[in-house]
Amino acid sequence: MISTKLTELLGIDHPVVCAPMGSVSGGRLAGAVTRAGGLGLVGVSYGDPAFIDEHVARASETGGVWGVGCVMFTFDTRPGLWDKVLGYAPPVIALSFGDTAQVQKYVASAADAGSHVVVQVHDAGQAAVAVRAGASVLVAQGAEAGGHHASLATLPLIPAVLDVTQGAMPVVAAGGFADGRGLAAALALGADGVMMGTRFAATEESLATAGFKSHLVSARTADTVDTRSFDVVRGIPWDEAYQARSVGNEFTRTWTGRDAELAAQRATVEPEWTAAVARDDTTQRAMFAGEVLDQIQDIQPAAQVVHDVVADAEAILARLARRSGAPTA
Amino acid sequence: MISTKLTELLGIDHPVVCAPMGSVSGGRLAGAVTRAGGLGLVGVSYGDPAFIDEHVARASETGGVWGVGCVMFTFDTRPGLWDKVLGYAPPVIALSFGDTAQVQKYVASAADAGSHVVVQVHDAGQAAVAVRAGASVLVAQGAEAGGHHASLATLPLIPAVLDVTQGAMPVVAAGGFADGRGLAAALALGADGVMMGTRFAATEESLATAGFKSHLVSARTADTVDTRSFDVVRGIPWDEAYQARSVGNEFTRTWTGRDAELAAQRATVEPEWTAAVARDDTTQRAMFAGEVLDQIQDIQPAAQVVHDVVADAEAILARLARRSGAPTA
Ligand SMILES: Cc1cc2nc3c(=O)[nH]c(=O)nc-3n(C[C@H](O)[C@H](O)[C@H](O)COP(=O)(O)O)c2cc1C
Ligand SMILES: Cc1cc2nc3c(=O)[nH]c(=O)nc-3n(C[C@H](O)[C@H](O)[C@H](O)COP(=O)(O)O)c2cc1C
Repeated sequence: MISTKLTELLGIDHPVVCAPMGSVSGGRLAGAVTRAGGLGLVGVSYGDPAFIDEHVARASETGGVWGVGCVMFTFDTRPGLWDKVLGYAPPVIALSFGDTAQVQKYVASAADAGSHVVVQVHDAGQAAVAVRAGASVLVAQGAEAGGHHASLATLPLIPAVLDVTQGAMPVVAAGGFADGRGLAAALALGADGVMMGTRFAATEESLATAGFKSHLVSARTADTVDTRSFDVVRGIPWDEAYQARSVGNEFTRTWTGRDAELAAQRATVEPEWTAAVARDDTTQRAMFAGEVLDQIQDIQPAAQVVHDVVADAEAILARLARRSGAPTA
Repeated sequence: MISTKLTELLGIDHPVVCAPMGSVSGGRLAGAVTRAGGLGLVGVSYGDPAFIDEHVARASETGGVWGVGCVMFTFDTRPGLWDKVLGYAPPVIALSFGDTAQVQKYVASAADAGSHVVVQVHDAGQAAVAVRAGASVLVAQGAEAGGHHASLATLPLIPAVLDVTQGAMPVVAAGGFADGRGLAAALALGADGVMMGTRFAATEESLATAGFKSHLVSARTADTVDTRSFDVVRGIPWDEAYQARSVGNEFTRTWTGRDAELAAQRATVEPEWTAAVARDDTTQRAMFAGEVLDQIQDIQPAAQVVHDVVADAEAILARLARRSGAPTA
């Protein structure tokens, strides 16, 4: 057992969080991570109401510490979505990708509802905003992450964020973690746990399609690319500060770096692309994945991932303390 | 004392390496790190012979374990430089930025001369080349580094490189390390030590100019940019895979992303730029620095940096082992 400010605040066994991945972290995956003693988060992403009803219900059935992860800027265009989320009274609400005003508004209203509020940040400035807004936990996400991310890498980001929080709240490291070495390193940096996305996408319980899962196993880190093309084809108004890391395919090779052209041709490209995604065409679909792909060799049960990450980190920390010769008691 | 495969192979006290920074890591800095129990490397960079004579002599005066760091592709255009380096019989020769043929050639010839050969790599493929070439130590450098770097971040890079070396040789982590938290994290990932550049540039002994040092203290990570403009203005034929991270200034704002234009106007721009650099004009000069800038608050003696990094890492590892509750003996 590794005890940190995160495990103490939330009353969970292990400092391991399953990222709220849109279309990937459903109730089964989030529930499995929660049952294994970590924190499972259902990915609400762009907010399909039927998805939320089905998957939140399944996560809440665990009776454990579960949560919902939301992309803040989508609430502006989806009236009723935020109230729907609050209506489920999730023990944890994770918020990402909002501007200062949104962070203040949604943190306050989630805290009023009695949830622990997790806010994802990408630099020291965003960390200060989240602290002032009253977040109970920060996730500091670096540029090696799968899916959307900003530009700073995790390794220098964590100390910079810890210098802002000054120990007042748990800080969870995200982006680039896939195993026990990563958890041990995050704790050594001073973080209170890790959030993993790509590693949990490659589990039995994840909602990733068969085509996507096979690429999670076969593609390597060097095959990933940063792109805006999946946002542009879907017409989702992402801030320029964020790009999404995905396994590269014909679609990214055709469109990455040609955002304006793609936007102009959307009327013709989008229907074909949507049809291709519906038939799990991996030459076209988004396959968000991070720089940890080199470390992923197989699809595992989520509980196995949680167990191995924690057991390996414990063994590493014990071994290092012996080798450093420092007194350990 | 933290003992690793690196400290054992080289017979040094601490797993801390001073990066071979061109125009920054002279004999005084390298010597100070070596005297403090780490490994100091003189930065030969583009190979000015007078610089080498002066600074290599000073580092070798320590009588300790010191070395020379070379940029491989420059040897092609500098006949005699490689033999000059070998002539000093440095205990350690560090080689970076070469293609496969260069790695094979220079590793073999440095090993023949009896030096430990350190090769810097940026992905698993380069690691395999260096292992086959017979390197004695690998440095795995991630994209958060100051100066020239490739695209993968340190955190996912280290495990990927360790999967190639399989424990057969020490692996040193570089890019994003500035303090004891960083060393502890690198060891947790499985690396055998850290190489730091930016942190050692901000020391009393470094050859960084007064203007550059003042920016190392005052500039923040968000002020850094990746650029090729300093390579283009100097006419140095860097491979497209590498960019250099520098504190942004008027020169980078004017020229970054306009490589072809800058190359075309070099005849007029270069003399003015060189004159500006000569008078330490920080609006124009390169000020290579990494994403660790947020963690750098002051100019310190190099021995203090080595001491604090090691002492803090030891304390962190002892504390974590206690908290994880794992048996430590
Ligand atoms: C398939 C996939 C989908 C993702 N979707 C979302 C999302 O909908 N909302 C969000 O905040 N982050 C999303 N992310 C980012 C994760 O929350 C997390 O920050 C990231 O995966 C951590 O980096 P890692 O992939 O190296 O573990 C996604 C990541 C992946 C891999
Ligand atoms: C000012 C400066 C100059 C550098 N010059 C060189 C060089 O001449 N040759 C080289 O191989 N690397 C050079 N580097 C890169 C370092 O060797 C090292 O990989 C890097 O600094 C590690 O990242 P860090 O800055 O986050 O510590 C330089 C780095 C800095 C900060």
